[in-house]
Amino acid sequence: MESLRVALGSRSYPIHIGAGLIGSPASYAPHLEGGSAAIVTDEVVAPLYLETVRKALSGARVTEIVVPGGEQAKSWQTLNRVFDVLLKAHCGRDTLVVALGGGVIGDLAGFAAAVYQRGVAFVQVPTTLLAQVDSSVGGKTAINHALGKNMIGAFHQPRAVISDVATLDTLPDRELRCGLAEVIKHGFALDPAFVEWLEQNIEKLLARERDALVHAVRRCCELKAAIVAADEREAGARALLNLGHTFGHAIEAGGDYGSWLHGEAIAAGMVIGAELSMRLGLIGKHEVERLRKLIARAGLPVKGPALPIEKMLELMSVDKKASKGEVRYVLLEGVGKAALRGGVDERLVREAIVAAAQ
Amino acid sequence: MESLRVALGSRSYPIHIGAGLIGSPASYAPHLEGGSAAIVTDEVVAPLYLETVRKALSGARVTEIVVPGGEQAKSWQTLNRVFDVLLKAHCGRDTLVVALGGGVIGDLAGFAAAVYQRGVAFVQVPTTLLAQVDSSVGGKTAINHALGKNMIGAFHQPRAVISDVATLDTLPDRELRCGLAEVIKHGFALDPAFVEWLEQNIEKLLARERDALVHAVRRCCELKAAIVAADEREAGARALLNLGHTFGHAIEAGGDYGSWLHGEAIAAGMVIGAELSMRLGLIGKHEVERLRKLIARAGLPVKGPALPIEKMLELMSVDKKASKGEVRYVLLEGVGKAALRGGVDERLVREAIVAAAQ
Repeated sequence: MESLRVALGSRSYPIHIGAGLIGSPASYAPHLEGGSAAIVTDEVVAPLYLETVRKALSGARVTEIVVPGGEQAKSWQTLNRVFDVLLKAHCGRDTLVVALGGGVIGDLAGFAAAVYQRGVAFVQVPTTLLAQVDSSVGGKTAINHALGKNMIGAFHQPRAVISDVATLDTLPDRELRCGLAEVIKHGFALDPAFVEWLEQNIEKLLARERDALVHAVRRCCELKAAIVAADEREAGARALLNLGHTFGHAIEAGGDYGSWLHGEAIAAGMVIGAELSMRLGLIGKHEVERLRKLIARAGLPVKGPALPIEKMLELMSVDKKASKGEVRYVLLEGVGKAALRGGVDERLVREAIVAAAQ
Repeated sequence: MESLRVALGSRSYPIHIGAGLIGSPASYAPHLEGGSAAIVTDEVVAPLYLETVRKALSGARVTEIVVPGGEQAKSWQTLNRVFDVLLKAHCGRDTLVVALGGGVIGDLAGFAAAVYQRGVAFVQVPTTLLAQVDSSVGGKTAINHALGKNMIGAFHQPRAVISDVATLDTLPDRELRCGLAEVIKHGFALDPAFVEWLEQNIEKLLARERDALVHAVRRCCELKAAIVAADEREAGARALLNLGHTFGHAIEAGGDYGSWLHGEAIAAGMVIGAELSMRLGLIGKHEVERLRKLIARAGLPVKGPALPIEKMLELMSVDKKASKGEVRYVLLEGVGKAALRGGVDERLVREAIVAAAQ
């Protein structure tokens, strides 16, 4: 097992990464002082790991809450079901919420913990690569509103994150690759040495070799933890981790939500971002090709869906509204070095989108 | 105008107390950097003060949200209506929520601000004496759940509290007196000199003399702010402000919610608490009579409803459950000196309830 610490003053917490952690009572014992735990998981994960986690919470009074799988679980209706069960089971303020599942469960259960009786402790047990590298660091929790995704939520830091790479054995290939898109993003945005490591080890990750997975998850968490520690409320540096997102969100929306997974859209979006960075003279053709090649080796798309360019620009303007008129792009100044830039000539953006689609 | 500061590190904020503050642009200007404000108020307060506050937010883009009056507004349905309006009006993370009303509006709008887009700033503008002395300090926000009051909420500190005692001119007499119950509670729990001041000035408060109101609101806020600064998450000392509450909650529930207002129940509950303190040898008959007399002069009940004693004890056991079997009473060790005590002989509790009903 490897461990690292997210430094947030009194809200600091450890991330433990290894194989077989979810079945170990030691993973939970330090956080069970109240003697009560509530496991929140979904219908996909429950048959795989709920029993294992329940046994590891030995000695505690355990409440189980199984919600439907998928993004639609991030609704007020599902959240209210979680509260119903917690209240009927007389779970008090000393209850530990255990979020067992992917990013949706982390968001839902984390937000439930943030507001149940004005806040109870929770532990994240992410069971997807995406959740292990990304959503388990930062404390962002949320549900969706009919008028927007993640509109209702809280910053609520977990007591600990238990990232068990053995749970990735049951992850579908496509979801594994989507997690790798986030891994590649961390490298290209923040760490040239990690990009080199990925270029040497991407096949090991695709083969789910545990030592390689532990290293990748650990490095991503370290990189994100350093940023979050400096920018807990997402004012500045945290935006660098949105590499590929302005284009990726447009791809997700343009391909109709559901047909493109987030990681796939981000992969193709990063290529457009790299093409744009090259046109601004920030990087050369060689760097763009390194990104494109690594994405392709990970089994991820390097091109977005065949959308008319005007449609892409229109979809991107949703991000524009959010930032008062000007799109600020996360660009690459080098491999492993992202930077925020505004005032980018739209002609170059069009060229980059066209070039990435070739 | 008088001001004091609630010291909570980076979440510290000022409370401004005076007459005519709600119509002054200076009350809001320091918090309007985003240029967008959303006033949340109810159908009772809106016709009285909404226009005044809207004008004082001059220069900002103002969204108005008027919800039904009363405790039932602390529901998910009403909260969701608030989110609907905020989202349709494109209110971003830089929107200032202005909570204009009594404790219900403070709880509802404060919780909306706590979770809208993972948290936006808010200013409390309490328009009842109860809210000015009590709920505007401490950062507690919440809505109700079908299975319990205040079960879903957050600790979310306001940027500022604007307590305008001129708004108390429109407060019904009965609600003014309920606010005075909280004022008396602060004195008897924490400050003997303030009790003496109240004994000399209670008629001025009943006559709504502004200087007296400013002094009383200020002193209560100072007393509560000192406790909250030491105990933000309500672990210990904050319980002292629950003087009268174990008995008061039973009176509220036994008299059917609605027939006894909270302040009235707390007043009668404090008398029982004082009778019990005397039976434990903590105070003498003189101290009990000082409390009883002040409550009576404020036009508040010194006796609860005529409930059978077994019913009272049963209703009190709801508080018992919450604290794992043993009721811990907030008792008086003197005028202005409350203390928490467990292990109290039930026979003495029965005697105190009977004595207070004489």
